[in-house]
Amino acid sequence: MIGLRGMPLVKPGDDLAKMIVEATRRSNVALEHGDVIVVAQKVVSKAENRLVPLADVAPSPFAAQVAAAEGKDPRHIELVLRESRRALRIKDGHLIMETKHGFVCANAGVDLSNVSGGEVASLLPEDPDGSAARIREGIRALSGVDVGVIISDTFGRAWRMGQVDVAVGVAGVRPIRDYRGEKDMLGYVLKVTAIAVADELAGAAELVMGKSDGVPVAIVRGCALVPGEGSAKELVRPIEKDLFR
Amino acid sequence: MIGLRGMPLVKPGDDLAKMIVEATRRSNVALEHGDVIVVAQKVVSKAENRLVPLADVAPSPFAAQVAAAEGKDPRHIELVLRESRRALRIKDGHLIMETKHGFVCANAGVDLSNVSGGEVASLLPEDPDGSAARIREGIRALSGVDVGVIISDTFGRAWRMGQVDVAVGVAGVRPIRDYRGEKDMLGYVLKVTAIAVADELAGAAELVMGKSDGVPVAIVRGCALVPGEGSAKELVRPIEKDLFR
Repeated sequence: MIGLRGMPLVKPGDDLAKMIVEATRRSNVALEHGDVIVVAQKVVSKAENRLVPLADVAPSPFAAQVAAAEGKDPRHIELVLRESRRALRIKDGHLIMETKHGFVCANAGVDLSNVSGGEVASLLPEDPDGSAARIREGIRALSGVDVGVIISDTFGRAWRMGQVDVAVGVAGVRPIRDYRGEKDMLGYVLKVTAIAVADELAGAAELVMGKSDGVPVAIVRGCALVPGEGSAKELVRPIEKDLFR
Repeated sequence: MIGLRGMPLVKPGDDLAKMIVEATRRSNVALEHGDVIVVAQKVVSKAENRLVPLADVAPSPFAAQVAAAEGKDPRHIELVLRESRRALRIKDGHLIMETKHGFVCANAGVDLSNVSGGEVASLLPEDPDGSAARIREGIRALSGVDVGVIISDTFGRAWRMGQVDVAVGVAGVRPIRDYRGEKDMLGYVLKVTAIAVADELAGAAELVMGKSDGVPVAIVRGCALVPGEGSAKELVRPIEKDLFR
């Protein structure tokens, strides 16, 4: 697990694949086939210019009502509603929403930050699997190395305190490791069916990224993963299989 | 992240700390101060003899009714109910329960396995923090090294497919990293408040443990963690702060 140091600050339009390959060269970390590159969603959203100045947002009447009830900025709520296809809970100042991609998270992944000149909202990538695939292709073109790519974001959980990083975009790695039918070392069929390895990889990468020290990319190496195209859609629980929606 | 090879099979009464220290010596992995040792719940429960042959269990009338409705073994359901203080969902063959410790998981953590002579249920440790603390103390006594210890188990999640390993017992490491009030590299106060690092460590360890290959212990090294006594209770969301109970 290698936190990739030396990534420059990301701006809209930047080529993340190029920045990652250059940072590995500067820090003498040669990429290897089978590495998984975990990239924090916030830099992907920035590179893809998924940024909206709050000053440009006109809140709908419903957004204004929710904002008043929950003590939020109505322009932020307007963006949260636009990014959502369903609300799970709007309560106690929290908006737990289902995004257009199917992810369940606070504020539909719409983060506010205070950049020079006023508040700016950052939205999730339109198509995080596509973002991951483009970064993967770019890295392959520039370095000749076939890596997996995971776009990670920080989500809260029901029932447990604290947030963890999970995968919102996947390319070149199977997000779920299926153990059905496998046997343990004593020959018993395993009860565990499917491990969300992409979420475990995203969480592991968070441990070397930190939040405040400018390490938005981590490299995971030496982990026996199942190759394949992969998609974060496999991590989205269909509503008919969800006991909690 | 080091999967510790060479652990013998664990039996009731075994001294896990001793087995871990001996396995590190056999595999030439010298423990270091600040290492975090992740130990799979199933070997902790075995060592603590939290095993119940199903043949010894007399199901209550309610357990029999639930078992009939959900297509389960009534003796298994009886143990699940005994280990629970609350039911979140009993539906579609799934029992999502709150354990006596406060963890929300399928079957209150009661796993069935088919050992020689019939089915045996494995229960979660009575006091997983205590289990972690005893392993930590044992390792310190035998090796002189102060490690953190996490007991991990495999839990499903609401809204997302696949299971991940999380922490059910903690000793010597703060399970939650609190970022409140910290600033990022541009000087902005961070929006993210608290990361459940113990769960991320447990999930990361799963990646090197696998399920079928007899690696129930992993060593995490070089991760900037906050020292402290720690308790998995900090990871249990109080019901009054839970939008989904």
